[in-house]
Amino acid sequence: MSRWALGIDLGGTAIKAAIVDEKSGILTDLRIPTDAASGPAGIVAQLAEIITDLYHQASLTLDPADCAGIGLGAPGAVNADKGTLSYPPNLPGWSVVPLRDNLQHHLQQHKGLSLPVFIDNDANAAAFGEAFYGAGREFKDFLMVTLGTGVGGGIILNRKLYRGSHGTAGEVGFLIIDFEGSKIHAGVKGTLESLIGKKSIVELALRMIEASPSGSSVGKFCDNDYTKLSPRHLEHAAKEGDAVSLAVWEMIGSMLGVGLANVVSLMDIRKFVIGGGISAAGDLIFNPALDQLRRSTLQTMHDGLEIVPALLGNKAGMYGSAALCFG
Amino acid sequence: MSRWALGIDLGGTAIKAAIVDEKSGILTDLRIPTDAASGPAGIVAQLAEIITDLYHQASLTLDPADCAGIGLGAPGAVNADKGTLSYPPNLPGWSVVPLRDNLQHHLQQHKGLSLPVFIDNDANAAAFGEAFYGAGREFKDFLMVTLGTGVGGGIILNRKLYRGSHGTAGEVGFLIIDFEGSKIHAGVKGTLESLIGKKSIVELALRMIEASPSGSSVGKFCDNDYTKLSPRHLEHAAKEGDAVSLAVWEMIGSMLGVGLANVVSLMDIRKFVIGGGISAAGDLIFNPALDQLRRSTLQTMHDGLEIVPALLGNKAGMYGSAALCFG
Repeated sequence: MSRWALGIDLGGTAIKAAIVDEKSGILTDLRIPTDAASGPAGIVAQLAEIITDLYHQASLTLDPADCAGIGLGAPGAVNADKGTLSYPPNLPGWSVVPLRDNLQHHLQQHKGLSLPVFIDNDANAAAFGEAFYGAGREFKDFLMVTLGTGVGGGIILNRKLYRGSHGTAGEVGFLIIDFEGSKIHAGVKGTLESLIGKKSIVELALRMIEASPSGSSVGKFCDNDYTKLSPRHLEHAAKEGDAVSLAVWEMIGSMLGVGLANVVSLMDIRKFVIGGGISAAGDLIFNPALDQLRRSTLQTMHDGLEIVPALLGNKAGMYGSAALCFG
Repeated sequence: MSRWALGIDLGGTAIKAAIVDEKSGILTDLRIPTDAASGPAGIVAQLAEIITDLYHQASLTLDPADCAGIGLGAPGAVNADKGTLSYPPNLPGWSVVPLRDNLQHHLQQHKGLSLPVFIDNDANAAAFGEAFYGAGREFKDFLMVTLGTGVGGGIILNRKLYRGSHGTAGEVGFLIIDFEGSKIHAGVKGTLESLIGKKSIVELALRMIEASPSGSSVGKFCDNDYTKLSPRHLEHAAKEGDAVSLAVWEMIGSMLGVGLANVVSLMDIRKFVIGGGISAAGDLIFNPALDQLRRSTLQTMHDGLEIVPALLGNKAGMYGSAALCFG
């Protein structure tokens, strides 16, 4: 018999939840808008409802004795040992909340469910998901980078999550690669997130389009309304051969490569799994990133360097949260 | 009875060797010029001579049954598992040499000594020395940074050396913090070593002295011969209140702080032990580094941040090499 677990991905706008079989992966999953306004107690109650429904659904075909628990990935700073979630962005009214214990007690007292609960932050959960079920399965050590509105990361060492001594490791978006530059994010200058977060990609593109004497064909992908310009438009234009869009991705990929070079030099990690919405640009980013990575590291560190796309898309969080119970 | 070992620090100009008691530390040590021109085989023979002499000296007062082995720290890329040393700088004629096995065989065949040999690179050995006997004793996790001609590092996690999957972890000098800058070291732009290595400190000082309208008092420490200017002179002038020298250290410390911020964000390491010749400037560097470190990281990562001076000076390598045998 194979074990199973519930994997929950708690986000500011939606809660995604799945029944996950240890071997075959997600059996069924659902997505429900987060009742963010209800604060910590309300969200615990909402999570408990979802978990109870899914658990009973699962018990129709799976043996409850094989349930390894409930895994939860949450935004913000999570202390996996203590089970606390601190000041999650996009969830108003939270300070430092003992989310694991609160959820465990609520399930026991109000739903009669005695199940172990495991929590971690969403970036770590996504990395662990890729490690167990996705692009990281063959890598003993790797860094998962999530490219989206922000730039996040999770570190896998020896097939386990590396959380650091306070649980805050893996903040790739805060790697400073341009301390004399003008870009700032969260009060820190020249971070990777300030340079290649979604907003910065669009800003860079707008500057380059304006500066280009021969123009860009990206306009036709955004109805010539540049206030709507998104990385997706730049991806389509680049794939059609638009020189400006290609140059934008080249620069974004190259800056990503500088950030990854720091990870290679410091941690001797040589495998990178890239996910998140922006990673849809694929080789448009990966190729210049790998080129820059080689230029930015000692030759003795080039063996085995690899950048690969994540495989689980927006299900990585559910997979990884469940994997916390198996791990 | 406490165990003991021989700790050897192999450098391009000198071999330092010590008898180290596990509890009380170095009992006796010596320093001999490296016969670098003799190549790998010659150096193995030289090391074997030194080891044999020291071993027999130790055996007069210590029980040979308590000898934990020979520890060796070497410059360049060391694979501690395989026991190889690759292309050590300042040692001509080497490629990839199985130094551990060669030394072990030589000791056995020519000297009748059957002792386990452990090797690691010199930066790791220094970090391990500080972890066992120096400033890192109270830290579970820390980064040791060596500031000198170059900028090196060794990472201690959970009181053990973190070497990475290929043994190249801890190359702090290669952290890129200014990828758009003009400084280059070993072909890589904007690295910490290119910015705060000894040569760059002097270059920065010369530029700032020239640009200063009111001049600098550092001239009197270098006999007004600026071709001789060294960080030591800048340290003396700053301690006397010279504004230009103070500003130089402020900038150097601040750049160090940016590099350390990357270590905090990525690895959640919050303790830093700083050694090497340049670290003699002490708080002139440490204070601006700590200030910058706080400015360059998320507030949730500020708990426990600490920068402390190394305690073992140029004996860290011998201590740490011996500790490889105890660890």
